[in-house]
Amino acid sequence: MKTEPKTLSGFMELMPQEQLLFDNIKNTIIETYRSYGFYPLDTPVIEYSEVLLAKAGGETEKQIYRFNKGDNDLSLRFDLTVPLAKYVAKRYNELTFPFKRYQTGKVFRGERPQKGRFREFYQCDIDIIGDEVLSLKYDSEIISIINDIFTKLNLGKFVVRINNRKILSGFFDSLGLSDKITDILRIVDKLDKIGENEVIEILKEYNISNENIDKIIKFITMSGTTDEKLNTLKNNYNNNELFNLGVSELESVINDLNDRGVNKDNYMIDLTIARGLDYYTGTVYETILVDYPGIGSVCSGGRYENLAEFYTDKKLPGVGVSIGLTRLFYQLVEAGIINVNNASSSDLIILPMTNNYKYIYEVNNIIRNNGIISDICYIDKGFKQKMKYANKMGNKYILIIGDNEVENNSVILKNMESGEQTEIKKDDLNNINNMIS
Amino acid sequence: MKTEPKTLSGFMELMPQEQLLFDNIKNTIIETYRSYGFYPLDTPVIEYSEVLLAKAGGETEKQIYRFNKGDNDLSLRFDLTVPLAKYVAKRYNELTFPFKRYQTGKVFRGERPQKGRFREFYQCDIDIIGDEVLSLKYDSEIISIINDIFTKLNLGKFVVRINNRKILSGFFDSLGLSDKITDILRIVDKLDKIGENEVIEILKEYNISNENIDKIIKFITMSGTTDEKLNTLKNNYNNNELFNLGVSELESVINDLNDRGVNKDNYMIDLTIARGLDYYTGTVYETILVDYPGIGSVCSGGRYENLAEFYTDKKLPGVGVSIGLTRLFYQLVEAGIINVNNASSSDLIILPMTNNYKYIYEVNNIIRNNGIISDICYIDKGFKQKMKYANKMGNKYILIIGDNEVENNSVILKNMESGEQTEIKKDDLNNINNMIS
Repeated sequence: MKTEPKTLSGFMELMPQEQLLFDNIKNTIIETYRSYGFYPLDTPVIEYSEVLLAKAGGETEKQIYRFNKGDNDLSLRFDLTVPLAKYVAKRYNELTFPFKRYQTGKVFRGERPQKGRFREFYQCDIDIIGDEVLSLKYDSEIISIINDIFTKLNLGKFVVRINNRKILSGFFDSLGLSDKITDILRIVDKLDKIGENEVIEILKEYNISNENIDKIIKFITMSGTTDEKLNTLKNNYNNNELFNLGVSELESVINDLNDRGVNKDNYMIDLTIARGLDYYTGTVYETILVDYPGIGSVCSGGRYENLAEFYTDKKLPGVGVSIGLTRLFYQLVEAGIINVNNASSSDLIILPMTNNYKYIYEVNNIIRNNGIISDICYIDKGFKQKMKYANKMGNKYILIIGDNEVENNSVILKNMESGEQTEIKKDDLNNINNMIS
Repeated sequence: MKTEPKTLSGFMELMPQEQLLFDNIKNTIIETYRSYGFYPLDTPVIEYSEVLLAKAGGETEKQIYRFNKGDNDLSLRFDLTVPLAKYVAKRYNELTFPFKRYQTGKVFRGERPQKGRFREFYQCDIDIIGDEVLSLKYDSEIISIINDIFTKLNLGKFVVRINNRKILSGFFDSLGLSDKITDILRIVDKLDKIGENEVIEILKEYNISNENIDKIIKFITMSGTTDEKLNTLKNNYNNNELFNLGVSELESVINDLNDRGVNKDNYMIDLTIARGLDYYTGTVYETILVDYPGIGSVCSGGRYENLAEFYTDKKLPGVGVSIGLTRLFYQLVEAGIINVNNASSSDLIILPMTNNYKYIYEVNNIIRNNGIISDICYIDKGFKQKMKYANKMGNKYILIIGDNEVENNSVILKNMESGEQTEIKKDDLNNINNMIS
């Protein structure tokens, strides 16, 4: 009696070619994080439930994978922020601040599975944590990092939408709506998804006057370039202290992006961006792929005042973003933005048609020393079967080496697309990078 | 009331500098795996218990993290081999064979925690799975991969010890001990740890005659070079069919290593290597660091006949190895082989002593474009505090940029070890790679 080899629903398990592309994206993210001098962090998948749930409640608690082992009440991490808070609080005396760390890893949420939602998924987080204070320069460093990543990923045009929570809070305050800020932020944040009319209807339900609704809509849909918006905010909306502080923070971040030389097409001020309800306190970001707005934000985050208040009295402000890689990859494939059929695990495959493996390995070593990933087909079968393997592996180039080639100190390079075959001298293989594309 | 930010015992959670070194090793392993044309694989951490436990029993079942969520009986993976078997059985019709895959990830075993043992640990596995048949060339390809990895890791001299289970089984068969093979293999495998005398004592307890014990000891402790041992096996021990098949497989693997040009100092035949009791059927490997024999095998594996017999009738032979990275890293630190104090997340740190950040970023972009990982100290404090940060970050080089330097179009490069300071023109920074070591 055999056991059925099944995988749980809501758990991504890719085909090899898909996994290769998935890992390429993950590596680009990690290499970019690293290139800014961030440390890697790798916290356990399993933690004490009381530690993971120190802050959480409601939905999170229902979704969590929680169980007992021996005397311990354990849970699987549901994000990488709570473990970071735990880590920094625990190691406060040993760490150097600002503490720059990234972490990429799987997190677990037992949501009801539905198309495009996963119960186990990768988060790729990057954060900088300060001790008491943290320079605003880090808010723009994060944008510079996002800019580098999405430029390298080559997924078409993208825009980082930037806002500052203090501006929104200060503005709603000035309208006498300070008791409804949380609700308004939540509604306003949906503008992109549900449209202006729907937002107005919902705001009405919260007993906000038509006059205030007009002001809110006019404010959040403000048009113009980044500089024009900044000018409008500074000159036409001289509001309260909180508002002005937010505007000055936003201006500082924008100026810093100018100084860094980040392409102005890749970021904008968007006053509708609010993010989560009570965590973020300053700069907030979302990132969209311009040609695929339906995908929603592919990279979000912002500035928070207090990373670890549930574990320590130390004030630990931070700023960071997270890329939900599993969902993003799923959407990129669905939208046809990345094409799995172009993926192969090697740059070329060697088909040995001789028993002189010493020669095969000599050739292989030359190719590998030039940075080429090569696969050797060791199938003990004829040429046809070996060609079938090469075809299935999806390589554009194969090297055929028979006894003739051994005698001639050469190889046959075949372009699988054009069918073209060229005999190449072994010594010329040091030039292999220029022969394959 | 604050929650104590504690981590479960038996779960590795490293300091940032340690994590950096850990990840460097992991990346070297992954890059080497990739360079041989293997596909990455990433199976879920959580699986159906019936799937994961299709084969397991005894100790494994006791150690497993198992729990219910909704109606499902779930478990965390305890190795990466069972998920591979599930994956290949499930995807048999879609995969191309030989299927070359690596997987690195955390696995979970609720062992009693003790020094150097972990409940959550990384395995770095690489395997090639055939459909019905699999060329012996893959047995030597695995050794070539191990050789590349441990050469690059630069942990001193290492040796891959190679044996073939058919030789041992055939030999014990020929002594009329076929009913005791499992016991003898288990005892013999301990020779390195407990010594010859202890092995003899235990063999006596199994009612093996003194004559046979003499033969066994003489056999497994056979001396000589690899070629001499092969000759002895071929000429002095012409045993049964199984034995001869094992010798011919071993000879074929050794010859192939010669053809590949693998350094002969890095492998040897060791007839005491037996590995797990019923899984491996041909070539088996262990790898030791010559100067640190106490660490034991750092990379083990071998050839098996049937990967997925619990899920499918298909015959799927394979060969592979696994590196237990968490344990290895722990041991390397304990033994002082890797030194955490030498690790820094950046190649140099820029200390801005000017408000002209446009200039700072210009310099930074030049440096980064030359492949240098640079960190910028954005602390809003004086020179002393910034130097303190640079010192704590452990960098050998810092760049100081004040208003004078902006005016001179230059920077000050300071070697923190020698104290030497040099003024460098901004344009000369394209040569930065030759200025820092």
